[in-house]
Amino acid sequence: MDVRAAVAFEAGKPLEIETVQLEGPREGEVLVEIKATGICHTDAFTLSGQDPEGMFPAILGHEGAGVVVEVGAGVKSLKPGDHVIPLYTPECRECKSCTSHKTNLCTSIRATQGKGLMPDGTSRFSYKGKPVLHYMGCSTFANYTVLPEIALAKIRPDAPFDKVCYIGCGVTTGIGAVIFTAKVEAGANVVVFGLGGIGLNVIQGAKMVGANMIVGVDLNPAREGLARQFGMTHFVNPKEIKGDLVAHLVELTGGGADYSFECIGNVHTMRQALECCHRGWGVSTVIGVAGAGQEISTRPFQLVTGRVWKGSAFGGARGRTDVPRIVDWYMDKKINIDDLITHVLPLERINEGFDLMHEGKSIRSVVVY
Amino acid sequence: MDVRAAVAFEAGKPLEIETVQLEGPREGEVLVEIKATGICHTDAFTLSGQDPEGMFPAILGHEGAGVVVEVGAGVKSLKPGDHVIPLYTPECRECKSCTSHKTNLCTSIRATQGKGLMPDGTSRFSYKGKPVLHYMGCSTFANYTVLPEIALAKIRPDAPFDKVCYIGCGVTTGIGAVIFTAKVEAGANVVVFGLGGIGLNVIQGAKMVGANMIVGVDLNPAREGLARQFGMTHFVNPKEIKGDLVAHLVELTGGGADYSFECIGNVHTMRQALECCHRGWGVSTVIGVAGAGQEISTRPFQLVTGRVWKGSAFGGARGRTDVPRIVDWYMDKKINIDDLITHVLPLERINEGFDLMHEGKSIRSVVVY
Repeated sequence: MDVRAAVAFEAGKPLEIETVQLEGPREGEVLVEIKATGICHTDAFTLSGQDPEGMFPAILGHEGAGVVVEVGAGVKSLKPGDHVIPLYTPECRECKSCTSHKTNLCTSIRATQGKGLMPDGTSRFSYKGKPVLHYMGCSTFANYTVLPEIALAKIRPDAPFDKVCYIGCGVTTGIGAVIFTAKVEAGANVVVFGLGGIGLNVIQGAKMVGANMIVGVDLNPAREGLARQFGMTHFVNPKEIKGDLVAHLVELTGGGADYSFECIGNVHTMRQALECCHRGWGVSTVIGVAGAGQEISTRPFQLVTGRVWKGSAFGGARGRTDVPRIVDWYMDKKINIDDLITHVLPLERINEGFDLMHEGKSIRSVVVY
Repeated sequence: MDVRAAVAFEAGKPLEIETVQLEGPREGEVLVEIKATGICHTDAFTLSGQDPEGMFPAILGHEGAGVVVEVGAGVKSLKPGDHVIPLYTPECRECKSCTSHKTNLCTSIRATQGKGLMPDGTSRFSYKGKPVLHYMGCSTFANYTVLPEIALAKIRPDAPFDKVCYIGCGVTTGIGAVIFTAKVEAGANVVVFGLGGIGLNVIQGAKMVGANMIVGVDLNPAREGLARQFGMTHFVNPKEIKGDLVAHLVELTGGGADYSFECIGNVHTMRQALECCHRGWGVSTVIGVAGAGQEISTRPFQLVTGRVWKGSAFGGARGRTDVPRIVDWYMDKKINIDDLITHVLPLERINEGFDLMHEGKSIRSVVVY
């Protein structure tokens, strides 16, 4: 079938809106009509050419929501008409990772997904007779896409696509890191580095579970207002701190953060996030993605005296199990997504969404089909 | 009173056996007759002058066992005749750390202990009228010493001093890291870097809780026999591995260690210990103490994909609560201490114990008074 897509033909070039061909779903696969998709830093990272694993031509996009149109042979958990969110981290419930019950990082289709292919080793997309690659197993920058059944979370039908698409990546990454990875408890003191889309979701996750002090750290004073609206109780601009930022945060929190989160992707702030944690028990969670080859470091004394350094991918959420729950939290008004979606664009203007992100003018831009 | 002690008069010099003066216990303090003491790498580290916090003259030693002789005013939990193990990590059960129930690192007397003084800011030891410093709050290289009540674990009277003194540091550090810090569960795969005294105790801790594969890593092939006796199932000598050690360990463990422990104090093996952990859930615990100013590093991707980096001090054990339990485990033959104590010396030959350690000839030397 013909589908409309924003195609990444090569690194460093804007996306091009084209009609491409999409094959129907094979065994275990599902054809989904995408109704809305967010534009995420990860898409921009790959498009820029800095992502060492980036491949072209490809159809990017991994933060979508839509409706099942057709299911392939053997698909049992979904039927046409079901509302779904695509999962770049699938949940097969059968692999060593899923059955460990210790991680959300399902490995069942990792090898082919990393190559931009479906589990059978081929692509469903083509352009002028030549294959176009999938991206993160999702390719939501097309109005129709094909995914494996295990990479789709079935959600309630009354949830608005143009809002809950954000749960496909940013919302879950931030809120999940608090709830599933760090397991922040009521009364805890939390420090959040970076008040972009992820950081704001960390803040509302911390508020949701009853954190005490929620300290936001950002160089941009314009972030303060929205962050306070989401639950931040204290704002720290490193430019305004005399002396050491870590010492300042330790003093502000009465001994250090019980939990800190790095939502920037900067290896220096990752170190600060660890070292501002409380001696004896502070847990620092890395969420941001650092540039290729960059390394974090600290003195091992920081660990021996009780701080813990961990990380979170997709918020530690098991997609098919937890994404529908997060959609419920949104529908129950436990979390706020509406105020994070600052721009809504048609597919034809998708490159403007990337520009807004690079200029720091948007929290999240969403493309609606 | 006059006591016999091995005094560290200055960095880099052998200890000198002297008669020094000891004041009786003040309020909240206890006079203990030390019956036996181990010689630990930490004593050697301080004596060498490399410890930036080392101060002289001091009476070193922190791994002892003895009998209460006299208690100061207000002491309620101990009486003359009680058998005790001195605790360099006390347990006051009242400070923010103790009441957090998240750490064993009691902070109630940290400031004065770090200065070589009793909680009231003075020393009980003197030599020719001048103060001699305490060390790690213990100073077990004297046949009598004074400690705060909160820094003494009361143990059963039938436990032999010359064995259970080792529970005052090395045994608890190793076994505790497995049981209290990492919380290794039955069936887990464990990798241990360094098969000295701490590593061997990690191994027997892992065996005690029912670990599956227990891999020991050491450059010294002579360590293999004793390690196997303590429960090691696989021995890896990095010198005999072609290619990358981390990749070898990941393959050997079928995907990576569920838990790894660094018992050397080398920042490079700390990195290897983290990176040989299983994607998604592997936990690496730093036990070894690195040289001053040295740093650990890794790519943050290691954390984002689910590995956890933590550390352990005194095995995460709460001294007054857990040390008596570990003494019970020894008396019940759940753990083996006898085969780790390779040398027993009188105080006069204490410097030989340091030599044996530096030469790698001993696992643990114990001084008996």
